[in-house]
Amino acid sequence: MNKKIAKIIQKIGPINFKLMEKAQNKLDNLTKPQGSLGRLEDFAKRVAGISETLSPTVKRKVIFVMAGDHGVAEEGVSAYPQEVTFQMVDNFIQGGAAINVLANHIGAKIIVVDMGVAKDFPPEKGIVIKKIAYGTKNITKGPAMNKVEAEKAIIAGIEVFEDELSRKGIDIIGLGEMGIANTTSSSAIVACLTKSKVEEVTGRGTGINQKQIKNKIEVIKRALEINKPNPQDGFDVLSKIGGFEIGGLVGCILAAAAHRVPVVIDGFISVASALIAVTIAPQAANYIFSSHNSVEKGHKIALDYLGKTPMFDLNMRLGEGTGAALGISFIEAGVKILNQMATFADAGVDKISR
Amino acid sequence: MNKKIAKIIQKIGPINFKLMEKAQNKLDNLTKPQGSLGRLEDFAKRVAGISETLSPTVKRKVIFVMAGDHGVAEEGVSAYPQEVTFQMVDNFIQGGAAINVLANHIGAKIIVVDMGVAKDFPPEKGIVIKKIAYGTKNITKGPAMNKVEAEKAIIAGIEVFEDELSRKGIDIIGLGEMGIANTTSSSAIVACLTKSKVEEVTGRGTGINQKQIKNKIEVIKRALEINKPNPQDGFDVLSKIGGFEIGGLVGCILAAAAHRVPVVIDGFISVASALIAVTIAPQAANYIFSSHNSVEKGHKIALDYLGKTPMFDLNMRLGEGTGAALGISFIEAGVKILNQMATFADAGVDKISR
Repeated sequence: MNKKIAKIIQKIGPINFKLMEKAQNKLDNLTKPQGSLGRLEDFAKRVAGISETLSPTVKRKVIFVMAGDHGVAEEGVSAYPQEVTFQMVDNFIQGGAAINVLANHIGAKIIVVDMGVAKDFPPEKGIVIKKIAYGTKNITKGPAMNKVEAEKAIIAGIEVFEDELSRKGIDIIGLGEMGIANTTSSSAIVACLTKSKVEEVTGRGTGINQKQIKNKIEVIKRALEINKPNPQDGFDVLSKIGGFEIGGLVGCILAAAAHRVPVVIDGFISVASALIAVTIAPQAANYIFSSHNSVEKGHKIALDYLGKTPMFDLNMRLGEGTGAALGISFIEAGVKILNQMATFADAGVDKISR
Repeated sequence: MNKKIAKIIQKIGPINFKLMEKAQNKLDNLTKPQGSLGRLEDFAKRVAGISETLSPTVKRKVIFVMAGDHGVAEEGVSAYPQEVTFQMVDNFIQGGAAINVLANHIGAKIIVVDMGVAKDFPPEKGIVIKKIAYGTKNITKGPAMNKVEAEKAIIAGIEVFEDELSRKGIDIIGLGEMGIANTTSSSAIVACLTKSKVEEVTGRGTGINQKQIKNKIEVIKRALEINKPNPQDGFDVLSKIGGFEIGGLVGCILAAAAHRVPVVIDGFISVASALIAVTIAPQAANYIFSSHNSVEKGHKIALDYLGKTPMFDLNMRLGEGTGAALGISFIEAGVKILNQMATFADAGVDKISR
């Protein structure tokens, strides 16, 4: 394994359960019946256990939006042509996409990364270029990328995280992505790693019809047959049926866990990335928060496999980090409860323990 | 019926379905697959239909936190003594409660109203005094209040809404409350109006044990038997088994609907208030958004009866408006999507219609 990746994995420690207990104790002395804020309290507790402080902050919020193209797009698996990846990334840079609006809404910064878009962006502010190649290869004909490229993609994810961490600091991250045909790659990953039938984890993506879904399922089956990814080996899965943006997200997850920063996953592509990350480094799982359950078939199967309960289900299926943005806001709410509420003693409220 | 209330009810019109269609059309031209933001789009659409503009704003957010005491507290239905109502309202005024933290988190103002707390607050800023009486009467022995008091409570709710509307303007409201023993009153209301068994709609409130729940169920059954509230008559239900804070919330709902302002309900007490409001004025239902499903048994039954799907379920059971605050933030997110995203044409993104 590449040394940089090995070093990051080695750095991922357990979360601090003693501090989580202390955080619960702090929560139990705030002016509310014990446990009455439910999962908001759980979020706060886990952030305390991750960041190892009883007064964690969720101020510097960053959503990494990783973009890459997929050779398998030529199999007609998406409702949109491949050019839309480039066009939408340009839209992210201009600030006109849904993730721009929702990141603004929660006060998060977005960092857009070209991990492997098929076209070059003019040199300009507003995008980080980590292009591994001009799109992956068609996975029905062989591996998406070679092993070196897979490692490069993960390292790029680690680097963009660490760059931002060292320059501005990061309290929490959300994962977002863009890549025409990347639900095809993600369905293949989820089928492989959760050992599910392809039919059970293949959905409508951006909005294909029944006939197109049948084709998509056939395409994924062929990709799995020809590549035979090893579900014990995350690097193998990533290189054979993954994507460059997926590798970048894996790197972000590993780096965030290594630096004790909570990670909020979004839709189907980011949950597929999380499956790869925990295959590579199982101890990263405790650093991951699920945000929503999306419309995409297989999302719930992947979350169950990760042992994560979604915070909400608003029938969303856009990706980009849109669900993660809303999830970050819930976690921030929980942390503010831990930090800002009065205790029974402070407020002069009678405390009746159950 | 009191003239002021009759006038408000008469003013509640249908929401503008044509504008909702136009809003959907606007949403379908934004740079995302059609419908891919799911219920966020629905929220935006309904706010457009309510406020009758394709560019609604959700800036001036107000959470009304209505407080009142309940005579039935003397039957031992709560884990907390009655004094806690006063103490917690004082905590709201001082800014130390969960609702203060979450209202701040979403940028909302809270307006705390004494609708009928058993003790007087010293004259000071930070609370609106609309005290109808020093708590309701014990509903196991007769009606909670007389008909005139019930109308007064509703009028007070209308007044606090209209005062704020005329002085500062309101784009959206959330409903919150505080009142020891008010889940007992609310369970009685929900049982009566949804024609459910008392056992099905009676929960642990602030955290009582199994034996105390049995007692609570008996108490509610006695209250229903002795009072025989008429489920066709919202005023009758409110006066016989309601609370002053519940009446205030009913007034807020009616006033908001009359002034075409969206209303976000919170937990079990506010959903009981919504049931009374739509019994009095069925056309108010379209102005109501549910936020979360709480732990309190019966909440889901009441939401189903209202035809509302909760946005999330985080195992919360605090009240105060805490769930409504988070729900308002989701609605605001949806409205920002409608207002701020680029269209396919603006962004130069290929649009593939399904």
